[in-house]
Amino acid sequence: MLIHLVNPNTTASMTEKAALVARAVASPGTEIRADESRAGPASIEGPFDGAMAVPGMLARVEEAIAAGADAHVVACFDDTGLDAARALSPKPVIGISEAAFHVASLVAEKFSVVTTLARAVPTIEANLARYGLSSRCARVRAADVAVLELEEPGSDACRRISDEIARALVEDRCEAIVLGCAGMTDLARELSQTHGVPVIDGVAAAITLAEGLVRLGLSTSKIGGWAAPLPKAWAGPALLRLHGAG
Amino acid sequence: MLIHLVNPNTTASMTEKAALVARAVASPGTEIRADESRAGPASIEGPFDGAMAVPGMLARVEEAIAAGADAHVVACFDDTGLDAARALSPKPVIGISEAAFHVASLVAEKFSVVTTLARAVPTIEANLARYGLSSRCARVRAADVAVLELEEPGSDACRRISDEIARALVEDRCEAIVLGCAGMTDLARELSQTHGVPVIDGVAAAITLAEGLVRLGLSTSKIGGWAAPLPKAWAGPALLRLHGAG
Amino acid sequence: MLIHLVNPNTTASMTEKAALVARAVASPGTEIRADESRAGPASIEGPFDGAMAVPGMLARVEEAIAAGADAHVVACFDDTGLDAARALSPKPVIGISEAAFHVASLVAEKFSVVTTLARAVPTIEANLARYGLSSRCARVRAADVAVLELEEPGSDACRRISDEIARALVEDRCEAIVLGCAGMTDLARELSQTHGVPVIDGVAAAITLAEGLVRLGLSTSKIGGWAAPLPKAWAGPALLRLHGAG
Amino acid sequence: MLIHLVNPNTTASMTEKAALVARAVASPGTEIRADESRAGPASIEGPFDGAMAVPGMLARVEEAIAAGADAHVVACFDDTGLDAARALSPKPVIGISEAAFHVASLVAEKFSVVTTLARAVPTIEANLARYGLSSRCARVRAADVAVLELEEPGSDACRRISDEIARALVEDRCEAIVLGCAGMTDLARELSQTHGVPVIDGVAAAITLAEGLVRLGLSTSKIGGWAAPLPKAWAGPALLRLHGAG
Amino acid sequence: MLIHLVNPNTTASMTEKAALVARAVASPGTEIRADESRAGPASIEGPFDGAMAVPGMLARVEEAIAAGADAHVVACFDDTGLDAARALSPKPVIGISEAAFHVASLVAEKFSVVTTLARAVPTIEANLARYGLSSRCARVRAADVAVLELEEPGSDACRRISDEIARALVEDRCEAIVLGCAGMTDLARELSQTHGVPVIDGVAAAITLAEGLVRLGLSTSKIGGWAAPLPKAWAGPALLRLHGAG
Amino acid sequence: MLIHLVNPNTTASMTEKAALVARAVASPGTEIRADESRAGPASIEGPFDGAMAVPGMLARVEEAIAAGADAHVVACFDDTGLDAARALSPKPVIGISEAAFHVASLVAEKFSVVTTLARAVPTIEANLARYGLSSRCARVRAADVAVLELEEPGSDACRRISDEIARALVEDRCEAIVLGCAGMTDLARELSQTHGVPVIDGVAAAITLAEGLVRLGLSTSKIGGWAAPLPKAWAGPALLRLHGAG
Repeated sequence: MLIHLVNPNTTASMTEKAALVARAVASPGTEIRADESRAGPASIEGPFDGAMAVPGMLARVEEAIAAGADAHVVACFDDTGLDAARALSPKPVIGISEAAFHVASLVAEKFSVVTTLARAVPTIEANLARYGLSSRCARVRAADVAVLELEEPGSDACRRISDEIARALVEDRCEAIVLGCAGMTDLARELSQTHGVPVIDGVAAAITLAEGLVRLGLSTSKIGGWAAPLPKAWAGPALLRLHGAG
Repeated sequence: MLIHLVNPNTTASMTEKAALVARAVASPGTEIRADESRAGPASIEGPFDGAMAVPGMLARVEEAIAAGADAHVVACFDDTGLDAARALSPKPVIGISEAAFHVASLVAEKFSVVTTLARAVPTIEANLARYGLSSRCARVRAADVAVLELEEPGSDACRRISDEIARALVEDRCEAIVLGCAGMTDLARELSQTHGVPVIDGVAAAITLAEGLVRLGLSTSKIGGWAAPLPKAWAGPALLRLHGAG
Repeated sequence: MLIHLVNPNTTASMTEKAALVARAVASPGTEIRADESRAGPASIEGPFDGAMAVPGMLARVEEAIAAGADAHVVACFDDTGLDAARALSPKPVIGISEAAFHVASLVAEKFSVVTTLARAVPTIEANLARYGLSSRCARVRAADVAVLELEEPGSDACRRISDEIARALVEDRCEAIVLGCAGMTDLARELSQTHGVPVIDGVAAAITLAEGLVRLGLSTSKIGGWAAPLPKAWAGPALLRLHGAG
Repeated sequence: MLIHLVNPNTTASMTEKAALVARAVASPGTEIRADESRAGPASIEGPFDGAMAVPGMLARVEEAIAAGADAHVVACFDDTGLDAARALSPKPVIGISEAAFHVASLVAEKFSVVTTLARAVPTIEANLARYGLSSRCARVRAADVAVLELEEPGSDACRRISDEIARALVEDRCEAIVLGCAGMTDLARELSQTHGVPVIDGVAAAITLAEGLVRLGLSTSKIGGWAAPLPKAWAGPALLRLHGAG
Repeated sequence: MLIHLVNPNTTASMTEKAALVARAVASPGTEIRADESRAGPASIEGPFDGAMAVPGMLARVEEAIAAGADAHVVACFDDTGLDAARALSPKPVIGISEAAFHVASLVAEKFSVVTTLARAVPTIEANLARYGLSSRCARVRAADVAVLELEEPGSDACRRISDEIARALVEDRCEAIVLGCAGMTDLARELSQTHGVPVIDGVAAAITLAEGLVRLGLSTSKIGGWAAPLPKAWAGPALLRLHGAG
Repeated sequence: MLIHLVNPNTTASMTEKAALVARAVASPGTEIRADESRAGPASIEGPFDGAMAVPGMLARVEEAIAAGADAHVVACFDDTGLDAARALSPKPVIGISEAAFHVASLVAEKFSVVTTLARAVPTIEANLARYGLSSRCARVRAADVAVLELEEPGSDACRRISDEIARALVEDRCEAIVLGCAGMTDLARELSQTHGVPVIDGVAAAITLAEGLVRLGLSTSKIGGWAAPLPKAWAGPALLRLHGAG
């Protein structure tokens, strides 16, 4: 089984970290193809970054389809471009935040999310509502950590995230924590031990869900909003006429 | 990995059918321990049957804990006794309806459920609301098929279910179908091919989710409503003082 | 009119306390038949206790039907086994938490619930959602009082409940308080005077609603999920094949 | 116990019909004081009629307070002026539609409402949402019957209502019917027998709930939106400066 | 274009203040006709005041219809009598709170409301729910300022409102503030500068929306609950038989 | 006042049609600057087209900011890239679907949407939920008309839309219709006359709301998710590093 892990931003170190976690949790026989967008912002912090990142990510999805990927995982906690990727690919596509929310719902009545910056909160809340899981989320919290701080070896980002988790457990009446950024993927197990509650990382969660869908023989329904794009005229540079040849 | 598949009713043929599907979808290395309750009703059709089935099911969960199960799957679409089983076991517990709803949400914006009898609908709707996924479900439909008809070789139960799916696709604007009874577990693949949309069976879905939770090292949070039972006095026959010795 | 007050746990002192309150609020001519389960846990603290308590409670419901009860009141704030009892009995069945929520909604735009232990909160919140009244409840709070502490003469349980009510009135912008345990039934009037807001006890509320339904000539609709159990095969000890003879 | 039944419109025959039903369901010892507004429209069909009816109704509430009423019942299915009456009176006030919705929720998972004219539907739906009970209502239907037709002996209004109930039971998956007009109050028992499901009349329901609140010693919380009116300057004719003397 | 600004209370100084703001924001060519009720309370603080204010306000609406008004704006933050006015007038009618909520939703994901007294909060919350915009409102707060204090030159009302805004911005995670009283209409711009977020005044918002509807050629749909009142008998003083001649 | 009307697809004839409508409804003194994306799909039918259209649209927004636009209107009924545009521009940005929903809510308790293709429905429903206005929408319907058919002179697209409106008025209990595509902008007035209910076009609605925000001196709050993009590294072709120079 070949699972495509796509990082919608252009920072390779984040891809590598996510790929490590993905390979650690994958079943024997599952191959992880990990790549990042070649065009757009180095990190996704807010809806402008997110929107600009999508065409570059979709180009990677198209390459992975051609390479025979059995499923795709979008490795940004905004689930950037998830609808577009689902429309583009005949194979299942899973966002790491939806994966984390669904998995958290299996082990906790209520969870809180700890993400990076306050500006990320509305998108996460909107996604929760879209997925139907707002009632399972006690609160979405920002630890006031920039995404790329998570890539700096000496930063105190992990401590600030742990402090925010501690506040969540006191104030939110939540029973589990979802880590709200692909860049936090390597912290889940340690934070779970520190705090004594399930701490869910979306990258690992999404890999296991993607494997599950492939084993179940299920893929995206094509009779609704995720139908394949219709043929039509396209304009502009190659990256923005991706489907012009389709 | 040892996954415990427990059928809360007392009909062994339903257990066997579910076990076959479970073993077919399980990863190499996963062992399925399947059993059914030894006390209670032969099928669960409504909340009275459901409530009476739980102590017998929990006795099986207790046995499986002792036998080293890594996770439990409750194989009744009412998710009978799911909260109680989660409180009892230190290991993850998944209901087949919640599994089906979460998996369906990954491949369809909206799904409809096709279950057996009209009397089963309110429990399923209440569970959807509890899980937070009501907004993802277009409609819960009954095909007017008794649970044990699904065990009779010559019955036309499958045809009636297929007819109800056809109506759902025309009337509900749904993109996928969830089969609303453990006894329908063997029909998913064929119905999916017939109707050209994802048809989700909860038994198979729950097995893959259970495997996923075990791989992720996640289990039920014990700081909320699913905390282990407190010691206290118990009265009555052995089966109803299960935790008296605990 | 004969109203059956059933305590789903096995502690007779709780039954007696509830019966006293019930008889005090009942109209002239109403007889209260009060009993408790003979099998299961001494108190209900969490969903495991609750599930194990139901068969013993349903046996009492069956006895009361035979004795000509006009209505049943389930005297546990989890509304333990309420759906099953409604299916079993041809007469109306009312849970004390649903009774309290409906009555509170007639005298306050928003109420808060003060219950015993934190582990009881998720079940209460789920019931509120099921009944449709989540929007009327400002918050469900735990006073950190074990159920059986309410039976101990010298305990400071009442003071801790009163303190939690005081916090609720400051923090929740609620206008009334619902007492979240059958064991608190004797405290309502005093706490109402202390705090100057309506304090609602579910036992008394349920008795008046049960009398009301009997006077109105209304009983549970039998065309949906609360239809009478279907005949089928049963296995196990007598208490778990209650309806085997049915 | 003295219960004040106030009809917010000016049609005395509707008051008499409601008073008959109220007296039939009231407990021994309960006196019903029934009156109607002396100013405003002869029937309430839409929000303009409703708004104009309130001052006249509140004058009657003020008279009944002076006469020692223990509770008030507002006998219009729009629950016309309910908030204002609750603010005005120190005693409990119940609207017949909220009464019917709460009572229906005790005997049916889902109910449908059958009211008079389509123009009445939005107010009823808004009230359901305000009370928190929208999720318990399958649909609000209009039988296309003018309010005063219900007062005409030879009209076929009852047949049209019965036909609409039949449609509701087929189309709505409801388990009970709420009659959506005070003028239908005498039809409940017959329609219930015809259709084999609970048919709830708000007048009778409100009387039993009002008796219940009085027995429970509960009244409207005065710390929120239903606090007593503040003293201030008033202008205009006597009926519109009701509280000028207060 | 003639826009009718109607103040449902009887305090002329509030009308004048609102008219000033209205004229300042109106387009060239828009004429503002401003008046207040001649009967009822001097301010609206709670549902009793509100209900008593409506007939006097509707009389002014009827006068303005005769004078050729193109739209009406109801200048009380409770949107007092909005439904009735919509039924009465063939022209669009806008409440200042609904106007503020809709406009705030265009510039902020979440807003908080700062109103006068705690007793006003439930009506505002009910209106938010009715309009569908509860999810856009973080919290409705009371600054503990009586309505008529806003008319007193030397009062510290504005400082208390500003303090409450400061608390909202810290505690509510809101991005904008809606001023919850017509009497605050002149404070918006200054408070917006002080706090660095959009501060929305309903009077100005409603004027621009009213102009917009007139330009769009849109008015209230008359096929639902806002249909014109039906002819019928009326009783009582002239002000309460407004439509008797209709 | 300069209002920027941006068409996110690359079809100039749609821009021209929208500009005509915009200029017709704009106040004297308002200038409309209309343009379309130079890169991406010729029409937006589903989330893939939508995602690919955003960078080209944002380039136009950046140009309009430089040209001194006072507000932007995004002229695609998916509100394509609305969040990103709000983050990018210091001036207010309005999507035509949100504009239509807010305006419809001022003239109808419930509206239905008639859009082009079934695949557009889920995005519209998700937007309604995000904006908070799902409860105001009776149903989102597709007339089975491709977007570019609306540009073909001889097509029967308008008739099919009118037929779908007729069905909506019979089946949905809606009181107004929202046209669900920018390409339908010129049909509103005629369809309103044909069907006798308000028919709302988002382009005209958005222009009046944009004018209103400018007059009110309000713009997007920058303390939440719509904060200006943070400086960071960008990669790829110029169009995808729009903010690289920022």
